[in-house]
Amino acid sequence: MADTVIDLNADLGEGFGRWRLTDDEALLTVVTSANVACGFHAGDPATMRRVCELAAARGVRIGAQVSYRDLAGFGRRAMDVPAGELAAEVAYQIGALEVFARAAGSRVSYVKPHGALYNRAVHDAEQAAAVVAGVRLAGDLPVLGLPGSRLLAAAADAGLPRVAEAFADRAYTAEGTLVPRSRPGAVVEDPDEVAARAVALARDGRVVAATGEPVAVRARSLCVHGDTPGAALLAAGVRRALERAGVKVEAFG
Amino acid sequence: MADTVIDLNADLGEGFGRWRLTDDEALLTVVTSANVACGFHAGDPATMRRVCELAAARGVRIGAQVSYRDLAGFGRRAMDVPAGELAAEVAYQIGALEVFARAAGSRVSYVKPHGALYNRAVHDAEQAAAVVAGVRLAGDLPVLGLPGSRLLAAAADAGLPRVAEAFADRAYTAEGTLVPRSRPGAVVEDPDEVAARAVALARDGRVVAATGEPVAVRARSLCVHGDTPGAALLAAGVRRALERAGVKVEAFG
Amino acid sequence: MADTVIDLNADLGEGFGRWRLTDDEALLTVVTSANVACGFHAGDPATMRRVCELAAARGVRIGAQVSYRDLAGFGRRAMDVPAGELAAEVAYQIGALEVFARAAGSRVSYVKPHGALYNRAVHDAEQAAAVVAGVRLAGDLPVLGLPGSRLLAAAADAGLPRVAEAFADRAYTAEGTLVPRSRPGAVVEDPDEVAARAVALARDGRVVAATGEPVAVRARSLCVHGDTPGAALLAAGVRRALERAGVKVEAFG
Amino acid sequence: MADTVIDLNADLGEGFGRWRLTDDEALLTVVTSANVACGFHAGDPATMRRVCELAAARGVRIGAQVSYRDLAGFGRRAMDVPAGELAAEVAYQIGALEVFARAAGSRVSYVKPHGALYNRAVHDAEQAAAVVAGVRLAGDLPVLGLPGSRLLAAAADAGLPRVAEAFADRAYTAEGTLVPRSRPGAVVEDPDEVAARAVALARDGRVVAATGEPVAVRARSLCVHGDTPGAALLAAGVRRALERAGVKVEAFG
Repeated sequence: MADTVIDLNADLGEGFGRWRLTDDEALLTVVTSANVACGFHAGDPATMRRVCELAAARGVRIGAQVSYRDLAGFGRRAMDVPAGELAAEVAYQIGALEVFARAAGSRVSYVKPHGALYNRAVHDAEQAAAVVAGVRLAGDLPVLGLPGSRLLAAAADAGLPRVAEAFADRAYTAEGTLVPRSRPGAVVEDPDEVAARAVALARDGRVVAATGEPVAVRARSLCVHGDTPGAALLAAGVRRALERAGVKVEAFG
Repeated sequence: MADTVIDLNADLGEGFGRWRLTDDEALLTVVTSANVACGFHAGDPATMRRVCELAAARGVRIGAQVSYRDLAGFGRRAMDVPAGELAAEVAYQIGALEVFARAAGSRVSYVKPHGALYNRAVHDAEQAAAVVAGVRLAGDLPVLGLPGSRLLAAAADAGLPRVAEAFADRAYTAEGTLVPRSRPGAVVEDPDEVAARAVALARDGRVVAATGEPVAVRARSLCVHGDTPGAALLAAGVRRALERAGVKVEAFG
Repeated sequence: MADTVIDLNADLGEGFGRWRLTDDEALLTVVTSANVACGFHAGDPATMRRVCELAAARGVRIGAQVSYRDLAGFGRRAMDVPAGELAAEVAYQIGALEVFARAAGSRVSYVKPHGALYNRAVHDAEQAAAVVAGVRLAGDLPVLGLPGSRLLAAAADAGLPRVAEAFADRAYTAEGTLVPRSRPGAVVEDPDEVAARAVALARDGRVVAATGEPVAVRARSLCVHGDTPGAALLAAGVRRALERAGVKVEAFG
Repeated sequence: MADTVIDLNADLGEGFGRWRLTDDEALLTVVTSANVACGFHAGDPATMRRVCELAAARGVRIGAQVSYRDLAGFGRRAMDVPAGELAAEVAYQIGALEVFARAAGSRVSYVKPHGALYNRAVHDAEQAAAVVAGVRLAGDLPVLGLPGSRLLAAAADAGLPRVAEAFADRAYTAEGTLVPRSRPGAVVEDPDEVAARAVALARDGRVVAATGEPVAVRARSLCVHGDTPGAALLAAGVRRALERAGVKVEAFG
């Protein structure tokens, strides 16, 4: 199918001050959408600026990777943040990033929650709605999330564009949900297998579940991880495999 | 002089989470410009949102009160922040506030540094230029500061509008600079005297120096303090005195 | 009963930098145990030092009021902190406070979790055990908590002394648990009623439940709140009523 | 000289949460004193605990590497912290670390300021005295610093033990002070040269200045840097060279 297109997104700018985590330069040669950390779990202002400049220069779309306020926990510790506070915290982060995106000649063009907030917004309707309320404070931006999540449902309720994403390096259940990280085999590590799964997800809209049967997973974007050694190489392999399979790698709408 | 106009500005939203400091509601009935804390010395996102909504509802102009990153010191501890980091930190704060200003139907329409950054930018050309660089990242906004400061000089160099401010409750030297807070008599506390000095500053462009002689102080805005008990009453007295003296209290350009 | 004794504890030092919340001086004339904030939800080092000096000078026992790392939420937002991190965070706070307690000639002599951590440790066995593990890292200190809580059970398992506390200004269910704050009538506001309930709790070991029947609540300490206007006056009224009723107000073992 | 002894110290535990910087495990096989970050510029509680356990297990002395409160700037931005606040902040950090040192069966046995605070305390008598006041709040611990610094002078005034340190990888002026990092040649990068300079410093108490003449630099400890790639290898080379030259590598008294 010549017209199959997929977006590749990765978390970028996840250092803070003296600390670096993601190889932003290398990943920006591969992905089409950059989820830029906005200062709450990672991402100091100077890094945000630099990543926006690099992304804009390469034509990579900039998204706000919003998080709980938790530098010490890297945003991986779920928090019971009251809805009003959470909405304001989300909007704050988007606004801060927007300055650097605009200064670089681009725009924040979508929002993706990070870590524990992402996971919480899969099932927690109140927090999902609060994230969406925060997005709306900042503008009617598309929301990137898991198909079937409360987050995308809340975005739909609010009339926001939704972008479903899939993970080439994560095992899926027969129901099409992610196998929790705590289970063995939850993360696929072989680069060739990751690339093959990416192609199956992008071209065929399905992937082999952990239990062996094929399962349908419709996604407009594939997430490639940026915070492991070799992440950029793995992502480049995914992109090459997609292009060889005739999938067009291109940002969403 | 029927056409004498002056702006009244105050620092608002200077709480953080559970802590409150400024009586935002009362002060917003008095001032014409609100210097809203942006999260670095004070000002959590929910407070920023609330203050922007109140300010917009009352037609009070919203400004970004940018600071060093120093919650523990309330932004009162000067920091040797490298220029690139400082510019990015300033821009970050402006962008975060802009979201709430816009959501409330208004805009961030000027920038005023807070505390130690304000004082440092009076004399320190490098930090003054960094603040202005941060403002320019966020947009070509007017900069509010002390007449004769490096900050306003840097703003002029960058082609940004400048707004000079004066302090009705601070003693001035014969050269027109502020008497340092560490000296006795640096702060005028008598409400009637503060009001009288406000009128002299606004209507006549001068004030009696600590050493007794009149000194010219040209300002388009008067700062009234918001972080003391009775601040709102003091500010209201200043406004009444100005209006009785025929001075029009109105935001700048 | 001439030998009835009760401890009065209150949260103190809950400001941060420029912000004040609790009237530490006044409360320290009333209580026998001071739960001092340790910097994670409130409590900058200079405040911790000052409160320890005041407490030591008045012979008030010093306890570590440990919290989630959450200044923006004042420690009121429950967090899924992994056990190892939580234990280390608890120990860190106790150690930091110990310096100021010792410098003032006293010691940290108990630990009480704050806010959301307190509430979570009532039901969550893993976090309760993590708090206790943190206490043990810092030394075998008594743990102050709700009777029947997982926290006190974990302390018992670890061989730590436990101190059960009750709340004179909170409504109780017929089962002896607290009526959630979200329900009407959860907080008793009339000072005379609070004082009378304090006497019933301390002298008789029981209180009238929200549903009308008496319920047994055995506690060695009563918590009086410090973060409301008039808190010190309310606490003083409680203490007077206890003493008039022949209850000895005295710190626990 | 068979009795020549030198201590090797390095900054350890300089990660924060998800971020790592120093190769603590490798460096702890080389150094005799570990300057452990205490949470203000780096060093989350779980990392502090882990590093203390490793250090204690290897018999490496534990020191508190105290800093300005500046995670975003890694403690490298000088701050005008009032003396009382600074003393309390220093004591807070020492106390927090002491918990983990004791839990591991060791003790905090010296204090070394980090980054901008270290540099400031060379020349700034007020901040040097404040650091020493903080050390004394926490106990009469030895202070590690630059010979001739205000910091060591303040420690002497307070009757605290002083430990002078030198840097094998930094160029010295003819007066025995460090060549500022901003100057070319300020940092010696060749491993063999660094090792040779370490031997000269330790055995002969002198080093060749940047201007070519020998200069006396008396030090009981040598600092090896931990935050660069290859730091552990470089440090191991220094230690080997010292031992080959008959210098005993051993912690100070």
